[in-house]
Amino acid sequence: MHTDLVAALDIGGTKIAGALVDGQGRILVRAQRPTPAKEDGDTVMRAVEAVLGELTASPLWGHASAVGIGSAGPVDASTGTVSPVNVPGWRDYPLVAGVRAATGGLPVELIGDGVAITAAEHWQGAARGHDNALCMVVSTGVGGGLVLGGRLHPGPTGNTGHIGHISVDLDGDPCPCGSRGCVERIASGPNIARRALANGWLPGPDGDTSAAAVATAARAGDPAAAASFARAARALAAGIAATATLVEIDIAVVGGGVGKAGEVLFAPLRQALAEYATLSFVQRLVVTPARMGTDAGLVGAAAAALTRRTDPAAAGV
Amino acid sequence: MHTDLVAALDIGGTKIAGALVDGQGRILVRAQRPTPAKEDGDTVMRAVEAVLGELTASPLWGHASAVGIGSAGPVDASTGTVSPVNVPGWRDYPLVAGVRAATGGLPVELIGDGVAITAAEHWQGAARGHDNALCMVVSTGVGGGLVLGGRLHPGPTGNTGHIGHISVDLDGDPCPCGSRGCVERIASGPNIARRALANGWLPGPDGDTSAAAVATAARAGDPAAAASFARAARALAAGIAATATLVEIDIAVVGGGVGKAGEVLFAPLRQALAEYATLSFVQRLVVTPARMGTDAGLVGAAAAALTRRTDPAAAGV
Repeated sequence: MHTDLVAALDIGGTKIAGALVDGQGRILVRAQRPTPAKEDGDTVMRAVEAVLGELTASPLWGHASAVGIGSAGPVDASTGTVSPVNVPGWRDYPLVAGVRAATGGLPVELIGDGVAITAAEHWQGAARGHDNALCMVVSTGVGGGLVLGGRLHPGPTGNTGHIGHISVDLDGDPCPCGSRGCVERIASGPNIARRALANGWLPGPDGDTSAAAVATAARAGDPAAAASFARAARALAAGIAATATLVEIDIAVVGGGVGKAGEVLFAPLRQALAEYATLSFVQRLVVTPARMGTDAGLVGAAAAALTRRTDPAAAGV
Repeated sequence: MHTDLVAALDIGGTKIAGALVDGQGRILVRAQRPTPAKEDGDTVMRAVEAVLGELTASPLWGHASAVGIGSAGPVDASTGTVSPVNVPGWRDYPLVAGVRAATGGLPVELIGDGVAITAAEHWQGAARGHDNALCMVVSTGVGGGLVLGGRLHPGPTGNTGHIGHISVDLDGDPCPCGSRGCVERIASGPNIARRALANGWLPGPDGDTSAAAVATAARAGDPAAAASFARAARALAAGIAATATLVEIDIAVVGGGVGKAGEVLFAPLRQALAEYATLSFVQRLVVTPARMGTDAGLVGAAAAALTRRTDPAAAGV
């Protein structure tokens, strides 16, 4: 019996999605606006309010008991603020206060978008039934989140599992974050494409230089394309193995656009994982593709709102 | 009012220490035997039983309500077995069953030695009052443990925080664990000494080639010695930053013989940490020397036994 209903927001650099979600993760009402990512902070907030306005106008709204927000990071759940890299108008922006004001004072739970995806995969996707899991999004960037001891583990500020910015190559190339040799600097889609091009991969007549095009070339036998995916796989494997060695996860779920590349990514990833995950307690670690679709962010934000108020076991998260 | 009393075992490759410890971490009774590390498994177990025999002979024994074990790893708390690298006679050895049999069926809590040190530092040492902490031992090997959300986080098998075997150099030198570029492979005492010698450091007339001797030379201005400590500091910084980025710790406590090197280690460590810990939510991370002495393993094993049965807040752990 899950009669709980919560509001969910999934805030990214491209779109702001909202939904009313029930205690079983079903989306009952939807709303969406483009993110005015280049505008000032209050203009971005008005787009959030427009999404919330559609939700509050629903006859179901009266049943909503909390709001969950999954936002592009970094977020700071301890202060209720967000500073998404790709939304420059929001720096330490008081998103939680704004959402609370727009929803009549409902309790608000804020987590990073990687943590939200993780909540969704744990509730209904590939990490379901796993008490200790890393879920990742490998796309334009590399993000993630952790389930520890059977529960989502957002951490004090809502940013845990930020695997894209751990260094697996301490003398490696500078990363835009300021560090060096980060997983994202090696394994993100743009870096897979950049490296393939640098090593002699030639895009097709359509000029597509996306990681998906590199994957297609790798499947067709192009050695530079395959080598670039293999290099990304090694970086991902080193990062996943580090996570398993630090917090004893037993499954790593890989989603996002690059995660959809299939065996071009997963075959070298499994091979490299066997090389880097060597201690006895991490050898059973498996890596698997994500199962949730484009609603993962909304479903995960809803999960965070549901578990905020209820026994996590009751919500199945 | 802490009237609880528990037994604690600290099992390493050199000695087996035991104690009766009260609810405030005071050691009331001690026992110790050398570890017959080259003997068969049952002979090693008899040394454990001899230590326990001294404890059970104490008039205080009747008050002991549980046994905590911190053992050289890997351990497997889920099966109650241990396989310490430096005790070859113990492979998947049923230590918990043996200890339970020798103590009249008391509940037994098994954790890795790095986790035990962490429990001690959190209870009474440098991590006290910190809800999210990494505690490390940098010595012949590199180990550690985690406090997350205010509580010790041993993980399903009791091995979390195994920072010595995360790769920070994915193309780096092979590590005896089977992986490459592990923190331990770069930052352990023997590796600090090996690298200093390879780069031209000459030991003194006493022929001491320990990491402590390298530290003395570094303080006296020897460039190869200082460079070897700086390299170790970079590897430790990359590993600490990775941990903070993955699980949002706010303090890293560094102990062990290498941790005693002082500013020869900590000055480059703080500098490198600023380079690798770049995201907003990890920038407040501090690194500090350990405070617990040689009893840390016993005190930490006791803490694990106490928190196993009681509200962790009540035991202050």
